[in-house]
Amino acid sequence: MKIGVLCSGGDAPGMNACLRSVVRAAVSDGHSVVGIRHGYQGLLDEHFYGDESTGKAAPVMSARSVSHISERGGTILSSSRCQQFRSDNGVRMAVSMLDRHHFDALIPIGGDGTFRGAAALSKAWSGQVIGCPGTIDNDLIGTDFTIGFATAVQTAVDCIDKLRDTAESHSRLFLVEVMGRHSGHLALYTALAASAEIACVPEVAVIAAKVSVRVQLLKSLGKHSIIVVVAEGNREGGALALQEKLKESDCPYDTRAVILGHVQRGGSPTPADRILATRLGDFAVRSLAGGTSGMMAGQQNGRCVLVPFEETFSKHKPLPEHQIELLDRMSC
Amino acid sequence: MKIGVLCSGGDAPGMNACLRSVVRAAVSDGHSVVGIRHGYQGLLDEHFYGDESTGKAAPVMSARSVSHISERGGTILSSSRCQQFRSDNGVRMAVSMLDRHHFDALIPIGGDGTFRGAAALSKAWSGQVIGCPGTIDNDLIGTDFTIGFATAVQTAVDCIDKLRDTAESHSRLFLVEVMGRHSGHLALYTALAASAEIACVPEVAVIAAKVSVRVQLLKSLGKHSIIVVVAEGNREGGALALQEKLKESDCPYDTRAVILGHVQRGGSPTPADRILATRLGDFAVRSLAGGTSGMMAGQQNGRCVLVPFEETFSKHKPLPEHQIELLDRMSC
Amino acid sequence: MKIGVLCSGGDAPGMNACLRSVVRAAVSDGHSVVGIRHGYQGLLDEHFYGDESTGKAAPVMSARSVSHISERGGTILSSSRCQQFRSDNGVRMAVSMLDRHHFDALIPIGGDGTFRGAAALSKAWSGQVIGCPGTIDNDLIGTDFTIGFATAVQTAVDCIDKLRDTAESHSRLFLVEVMGRHSGHLALYTALAASAEIACVPEVAVIAAKVSVRVQLLKSLGKHSIIVVVAEGNREGGALALQEKLKESDCPYDTRAVILGHVQRGGSPTPADRILATRLGDFAVRSLAGGTSGMMAGQQNGRCVLVPFEETFSKHKPLPEHQIELLDRMSC
Amino acid sequence: MKIGVLCSGGDAPGMNACLRSVVRAAVSDGHSVVGIRHGYQGLLDEHFYGDESTGKAAPVMSARSVSHISERGGTILSSSRCQQFRSDNGVRMAVSMLDRHHFDALIPIGGDGTFRGAAALSKAWSGQVIGCPGTIDNDLIGTDFTIGFATAVQTAVDCIDKLRDTAESHSRLFLVEVMGRHSGHLALYTALAASAEIACVPEVAVIAAKVSVRVQLLKSLGKHSIIVVVAEGNREGGALALQEKLKESDCPYDTRAVILGHVQRGGSPTPADRILATRLGDFAVRSLAGGTSGMMAGQQNGRCVLVPFEETFSKHKPLPEHQIELLDRMSC
Repeated sequence: MKIGVLCSGGDAPGMNACLRSVVRAAVSDGHSVVGIRHGYQGLLDEHFYGDESTGKAAPVMSARSVSHISERGGTILSSSRCQQFRSDNGVRMAVSMLDRHHFDALIPIGGDGTFRGAAALSKAWSGQVIGCPGTIDNDLIGTDFTIGFATAVQTAVDCIDKLRDTAESHSRLFLVEVMGRHSGHLALYTALAASAEIACVPEVAVIAAKVSVRVQLLKSLGKHSIIVVVAEGNREGGALALQEKLKESDCPYDTRAVILGHVQRGGSPTPADRILATRLGDFAVRSLAGGTSGMMAGQQNGRCVLVPFEETFSKHKPLPEHQIELLDRMSC
Repeated sequence: MKIGVLCSGGDAPGMNACLRSVVRAAVSDGHSVVGIRHGYQGLLDEHFYGDESTGKAAPVMSARSVSHISERGGTILSSSRCQQFRSDNGVRMAVSMLDRHHFDALIPIGGDGTFRGAAALSKAWSGQVIGCPGTIDNDLIGTDFTIGFATAVQTAVDCIDKLRDTAESHSRLFLVEVMGRHSGHLALYTALAASAEIACVPEVAVIAAKVSVRVQLLKSLGKHSIIVVVAEGNREGGALALQEKLKESDCPYDTRAVILGHVQRGGSPTPADRILATRLGDFAVRSLAGGTSGMMAGQQNGRCVLVPFEETFSKHKPLPEHQIELLDRMSC
Repeated sequence: MKIGVLCSGGDAPGMNACLRSVVRAAVSDGHSVVGIRHGYQGLLDEHFYGDESTGKAAPVMSARSVSHISERGGTILSSSRCQQFRSDNGVRMAVSMLDRHHFDALIPIGGDGTFRGAAALSKAWSGQVIGCPGTIDNDLIGTDFTIGFATAVQTAVDCIDKLRDTAESHSRLFLVEVMGRHSGHLALYTALAASAEIACVPEVAVIAAKVSVRVQLLKSLGKHSIIVVVAEGNREGGALALQEKLKESDCPYDTRAVILGHVQRGGSPTPADRILATRLGDFAVRSLAGGTSGMMAGQQNGRCVLVPFEETFSKHKPLPEHQIELLDRMSC
Repeated sequence: MKIGVLCSGGDAPGMNACLRSVVRAAVSDGHSVVGIRHGYQGLLDEHFYGDESTGKAAPVMSARSVSHISERGGTILSSSRCQQFRSDNGVRMAVSMLDRHHFDALIPIGGDGTFRGAAALSKAWSGQVIGCPGTIDNDLIGTDFTIGFATAVQTAVDCIDKLRDTAESHSRLFLVEVMGRHSGHLALYTALAASAEIACVPEVAVIAAKVSVRVQLLKSLGKHSIIVVVAEGNREGGALALQEKLKESDCPYDTRAVILGHVQRGGSPTPADRILATRLGDFAVRSLAGGTSGMMAGQQNGRCVLVPFEETFSKHKPLPEHQIELLDRMSC
């Protein structure tokens, strides 16, 4: 079997560990793997990993070619967002490229955008398509966690641990904006792990006035400093917008806003992300044997599962309610 | 309700986060919490947190007294192993102390030794005893992970990432010994996350000769360096013993042994450990309302559960078989 | 001798290590130390470390009271910027408070603002004032490095290492803004250590057009990604302003701006900062014996020196020219 | 000019940053650089970086070939200790290889063993030899710090910060062994930065009895835990030997020994090491223009200097006396 593998959309820590796993599992099972660069765009452009000296030929990746990449952030394949691929024509071109290079299967690693493309492709193409969930947003249904999420939480928590030092030294309130346009998973987990006092997530209509009341209460409890974690897609705006509103309402703390930004995407993946990535990459390759296609390889309650692409992105992945309540109980 | 809380046995990262959670949850629910220092020993000695100026009186811990401790390793309560408490007499004395200070409940945080004591105590005492699993060994049945395990894996993986640099620079084989006298969980997860080639765990009778054959094979595959993770309770001995045996068998690599030791116990807990500790501490306090006793608060498949103490330590917690196989498939 | 110690201005990692050193050196030399909270403000308010139960009394800090604080960011004394103290009247009040509590000496830890106040105070007061340079800006003349600078560089470099992962994965240019309103030390050292391609510092009039030309050249050399480190006080504006200008000039890379912000102030100090802080705190206490006042304790070429306060802030501390040139030679 | 570069002896973090600097500086100055693998051994074997497809030909390293290696530990060139090169015959062979490949200059990166070889080579060969000090031991005279030392201190301090958690939780004394067979620099700096109570270094005849007395004193001062940093070349043996002796003398603390081992060699270099490595690599290349040979490029008091190889290793580099005294003053 000849398997193509690509990373698409925003990069996530663990993509390299997943790639290594796909290559090594394929070698173990007697398949060959070709790395496609820059996501779907590289497929349309026939741009393959290691083709610098071979031109449009698609070199097979050896087990050695993925040595010591699991511990590195980003993706050695490079990633991109591909406009062209969103059209029917783009999908048709992709199919023709996959056939021209005699691929039997494709393993795209990415988030909801990647899987939308993968769903379209798997309908149009005779080969098998099995995806791995690589995104720091943890917004895909069908897997408890996505690859990269744990590392992004770790990075955000490390930053907040540092901010707490300066917050305590100056009795300040920090509004810390983390990624998450539509999903509050990253904000909520970060808040809980960093002992933040408040989390503002897109899923819950927390208005600034309510935050303000809560802050007053926390002040009365003797808190020297406050950390508010704000998802970028928060309904009343990000950290800067919320800061303006808090100032208007006589906030009893000196306030500062910090936008963590792209720092959250990088870094060496945590052990949890490396293991998840390794397991799902391996499972994706194993699943090819059964002829499966159009599915994401996910992990639920410790077990590997296959979930149709459409299910992964068609609904909003709910936040764990008990964590919202737990965060409240802890900030007393 | 008046709740006592203590940490017992080897310390584990996350114990402080669990303590904070117990105190804050109790404050939320209208209970009062007293911290007992140095584990069961401190109970026998009537040694309480914050009693420096109050003598044998048992000061109630305020919500503020546990501010900013979640991110710190170790335990502010101090821990110990208590010989005296293992006898019937010790348990009787503990009961009398609990009664003298009018405790209604006790929340011990620790591992299997701690829970053996807790089981005895819950039979002898009229109050409630609910435990939280705090140990880096992950060897307790009834919870998917114990508090501290994820951080110990992180620390071991960080060390091996560093060792890989020097292993690659000198084409060496490193035998890295991690903690685990009877349990290979730490060794196996570390090996998988650190892209180690081989794991030697107490559960599997890996003889040195077999390791040697495997190393020869890996050499033939072109590996520049090899990492073997060895649990201290490995059947043919730890890293040093295994190194001797490998040398006898004409190992094709220059070998070095490293014993990670107590470094694995410390450090700021990972987000996963902080969240787990927070959740279980809170759940332990909530469970008191139902009159429950003699149980450990654990987490299984994302849900909080109560498990009788005896179940947690009476059998050996099996290793995830699929991970052993996965490690093998990846080292090709 | 009765010594007061305070932290003033923006907090810097290593302030705690310096405080510990002052207390321990004083204990060694038979002096007593009182910690003043919230900088000069706390002096005016008679707010001392550990006075929660003693009211306005000024408790002496024991050697034990500073155990295990060297490794923690921020300052356990708390810091602040004090408007009142900038007036003659404020200084007079401070003198009267110092006398009322029978202080013989004051050791303020902080940056240029702190030393301006210290200079005024040392003229108005009969006691001795010796300062320690605690600021992440490294903008004080008379010491090779200030306490906190090395840690801020470390934090910024760690962040850029993470950003490089995602920059490489997407072939992007990142504009990374670091602190430094008037001084480019942090930006320059960070750029050099992080292998950034370009640094924009307040000291050099780098216009956007020039950056743009340089970026075009780097693109032609085959660079996949570019990191531009921008000091917040850069003449053409910070990272966001520069991003706008680069976009106008047809930048060949997709660009992103990241503002590191207050994360740079926190974190466990690096070994270099802990040692520098320890050495200068000790030297400040030793220097009291000679009757010296009105001076900063600094380190030059590995030796401890005393420098009059006025000299430390009256001129701009020049950037190391050779590093600017070195950065240029490296980005080829 | 055609320059050879190699890494020899124990690897040190920052060797890659130094290599990058040599290559980039050479590109800037119009020279060409060839990487020699595995130290002097690779020179004898004509084993060059990137020669996998070219056989014995020596491919020139491009500026791009050293992208993004500064942040990685170890050395991409690989290192080794070469017995053969220690003989006159080995040196003659090396000269003949350097001539066969038309080298004009050689830049060896390494420690005292490397420089002994370099001294011999520079006498026997007509080309220029300028070395860069790459060793975690900081035992070379003529440079304030060697490349890799700061990172090794950081790693050791990080480990001790973790050990302190568990030491405090259990009221223990930890004997922590760091590298340093003949030199106590690493032990002393680590001890000072980690707030250790005692350092045992090869330079000072600290007998166990004296340590024991000191420990008794510290106990009486109320210390909950003790950290003793022991250089491996300590006169009364390493951490394990010292532990035995302390036990015999009725140590008032429960004791544990930890040998940090090769973990100290790896890891991403600190900013200080990256900058030092970059500066010295550049300076070595620049110095070639003057016809210099037989010298090490070092840094003293912030300036780059050239020091004859023989001077760098012929005497013992003394410990900073004031740090020994400072450590004593701080542990009170």
